Amino acid sequence: MADTIFTKILRGEIPCHPVYEDEHVLAFLDVGPLSRGHTLVIPKQPAETLDKLTDESAAALGRALPRVARGVLAATGAKSYNVLQNNGAAAHQAVLHVHFHVIPKYDDGSGLGIEWKPGKLEGGAELAKAIAAKV
Amino acid sequence: MADTIFTKILRGEIPCHPVYEDEHVLAFLDVGPLSRGHTLVIPKQPAETLDKLTDESAAALGRALPRVARGVLAATGAKSYNVLQNNGAAAHQAVLHVHFHVIPKYDDGSGLGIEWKPGKLEGGAELAKAIAAKV
Repeated sequence: MADTIFTKILRGEIPCHPVYEDEHVLAFLDVGPLSRGHTLVIPKQPAETLDKLTDESAAALGRALPRVARGVLAATGAKSYNVLQNNGAAAHQAVLHVHFHVIPKYDDGSGLGIEWKPGKLEGGAELAKAIAAKV
Repeated sequence: MADTIFTKILRGEIPCHPVYEDEHVLAFLDVGPLSRGHTLVIPKQPAETLDKLTDESAAALGRALPRVARGVLAATGAKSYNVLQNNGAAAHQAVLHVHFHVIPKYDDGSGLGIEWKPGKLEGGAELAKAIAAKV
């Protein structure tokens, strides 16, 4: 995997404002926050996208997310928040190292903006079978 | 916690199209998909928001996400995708039981729409310290 700003942060070559760290995970403030308390939670495993993570690394990330969320809520007073993780340029991934955003949503509207245009599920039984066969 | 459509799905009272299940996690197709293969990954623990999850439940969710993502990618041919998890009505949470969306993003534009209006981090050292103290 190519070097990214996050691998440099993990190696201590670029500073960050850390909020949590364990054997597999580092969390720190986003320098371009959508709202106050916007935090990034990243694996130490150098993987470009979520689907490349090992079970161990992914479980550690999962365990860290509620902990970090509790910290963000307690420190900011936010009541609502979004957790977002983007994979691929078409899905808005900007840094090619897995990262979860924890983004407080405030009454002033700051936070993540979401466009939701739902369709209707068709051919669900077949599609679910096809996915299940590859999980 | 109040009963939701997801607790009813977990009890088998409402049908779903499952794609993955383990001791702590169930994943199934969203009936109102933003794109083909839009899948929900939920904990069996009845928790309204991510910050309420136990370590065990959260780790199992984390471990399941890449597995489900690999299945969705393999079955749909999608190259990009977003993982989204909403907490609180202000953050677009519609069902009050934790759920991660795995949403493929396709060249036709179907998938998650994101509005991204970044600011600049100010007072980061202090804020990170305040969050870290509560993690």
